[in-house]
Amino acid sequence: MTSRRTALFTAGAAIAAPAMLRSRGALAQAAAPAAPQAPGFYRFRVGGFIVTTVHDGFFARPLEGFVRNAPLAEVQAVARDAFLPTDRTLIPFTITFVARGDTVAAFDAGNGVTPANATNGRMIANMAAAGIDPARVTHVVHSHFHGDHINGLLDAGGARAFPNAEVLVPSTEWAWWTTEGNQTRSPEGQRGTFANVARRFAPYQGRVRPFEPGAEVLPGITSMAAYGHTPGHTVFRIADGDAQMMFLADLTNRPEIMMARPDWQIVFDFDGDAAATVRRRVLDMVATDRIRVTGYHYPFPANGYVARAGQGFRFVPADWSSTV
Amino acid sequence: MTSRRTALFTAGAAIAAPAMLRSRGALAQAAAPAAPQAPGFYRFRVGGFIVTTVHDGFFARPLEGFVRNAPLAEVQAVARDAFLPTDRTLIPFTITFVARGDTVAAFDAGNGVTPANATNGRMIANMAAAGIDPARVTHVVHSHFHGDHINGLLDAGGARAFPNAEVLVPSTEWAWWTTEGNQTRSPEGQRGTFANVARRFAPYQGRVRPFEPGAEVLPGITSMAAYGHTPGHTVFRIADGDAQMMFLADLTNRPEIMMARPDWQIVFDFDGDAAATVRRRVLDMVATDRIRVTGYHYPFPANGYVARAGQGFRFVPADWSSTV
Repeated sequence: MTSRRTALFTAGAAIAAPAMLRSRGALAQAAAPAAPQAPGFYRFRVGGFIVTTVHDGFFARPLEGFVRNAPLAEVQAVARDAFLPTDRTLIPFTITFVARGDTVAAFDAGNGVTPANATNGRMIANMAAAGIDPARVTHVVHSHFHGDHINGLLDAGGARAFPNAEVLVPSTEWAWWTTEGNQTRSPEGQRGTFANVARRFAPYQGRVRPFEPGAEVLPGITSMAAYGHTPGHTVFRIADGDAQMMFLADLTNRPEIMMARPDWQIVFDFDGDAAATVRRRVLDMVATDRIRVTGYHYPFPANGYVARAGQGFRFVPADWSSTV
Repeated sequence: MTSRRTALFTAGAAIAAPAMLRSRGALAQAAAPAAPQAPGFYRFRVGGFIVTTVHDGFFARPLEGFVRNAPLAEVQAVARDAFLPTDRTLIPFTITFVARGDTVAAFDAGNGVTPANATNGRMIANMAAAGIDPARVTHVVHSHFHGDHINGLLDAGGARAFPNAEVLVPSTEWAWWTTEGNQTRSPEGQRGTFANVARRFAPYQGRVRPFEPGAEVLPGITSMAAYGHTPGHTVFRIADGDAQMMFLADLTNRPEIMMARPDWQIVFDFDGDAAATVRRRVLDMVATDRIRVTGYHYPFPANGYVARAGQGFRFVPADWSSTV
């Protein structure tokens, strides 16, 4: 039964996904799934910027233990209200690319090279589908240094995945994770970040540019400190005239859960109290000003708006358009 | 500025969209947009069925006059709450394809051939991207006979766009629009439907099979009368064991507006009172049973769930997954 069913799509699949990848050496190896999913990218404009969100897949972990300061049953109730699984949480990863003129900036770098059977690590393939060449990425702008945001700086050979990019990093984040003495002042689960930062940034020596909180990191792109999730976690405003959006990085994990209960703290928060405080403040701002937002762990295509709902907020996905 | 900006994507675009269309004669003519949107299809499973939603683009019309029984300001307030435009409404079109074994059923037929500058008429191109060959579509199952649902039965030459398909139609809908005497009993704005039905179904002579309300139209696919939007408007349940979904067709237009206020009646409703009554009944059912739904005018990828909200309901898009 399965072989007959999947055969229905095989002819078409030979036209679709593999054709996209044909001229990309490494990717040409990828086998064509019988009934492939659509490529994971989506485009929209913000004034003169073209924004492309590019999916890097997802990671499944138990819902239990995900939120530190609420009983599992309460977290499950919120997940259920959002029609999400209640036994596990699927954490999606989406990289926001912002292009104008010759500048192509990636906001964070994806999970990078992952095992063949992993459900994440799809950024480079989806970039190819979107027509974004890693060699033409001029800047990688980092929100913070957790592994799922920096591992993609390296390709399979340990070289720069973005060979020509300058890497812009929050000075506070850079200072924390490059100072060995901070190890013992970091949560035990995050101490591996020190070695990982050293490794992932190594081939970018001379290309790393720390920026101060509030700095305009690129024309029209301004940083905003949102410390808590990590010591230097930063969000960004992208503006051109009246048009604007914000990349909210890990201000929340899945918004269906963490916007509904902004005071909840998750297992990955460095300083949960600080994270919750800045979460409420920034969500309040983007809800009041009705600013379009993208986020690293939002449901793909990871762009939408924030509305007030009850004691918290609600993520409203932006309408999908076939025109850019 | 524009030429430099768009040039960034041109190389990639040559890999992406056009490659998908290369082997399709008519489509190979389509020029590559500089920064193309992702192809409009999305896949998920319902038991042994593979469901693919395929986008046919959208149509913009003024918001004024869209809802017949509410002041424009109230409609605008609901649109604004959903972060949708308040001057016009963008009506999206998405065709639900359901495949199992050798059967590939399309739920409604799209807008068909449209002018080159139209924002709709993209179904055939998106089917190609999804690997669905019109010649392998075994059944077109119709909810009702408004033009945006039946015009796509014909290709540019007026021949069958689905050359090998049987066309399954609700017997009540078929009887209404093929009986000339009903013209004067139909709203003036819908009288063109009689001639259009004659034209669109003509090349399918001997292939049209009317079904009774409640009939199992294909194995696992059961019809359910939802009369009002048109005299024979029908929705469908697709079930395999415990897994199920419903295709809700035009039970609502944009759900952000029409689920929020299920008693509103739109300009396209044949019998607005009947449409509102059945809308509440079916929405109540899918909300209670938490059944996944697709709809013809839902925001792409047009699949999600219905939750109760205030005096009405709220559409909750299903999580997007990179795996099928």
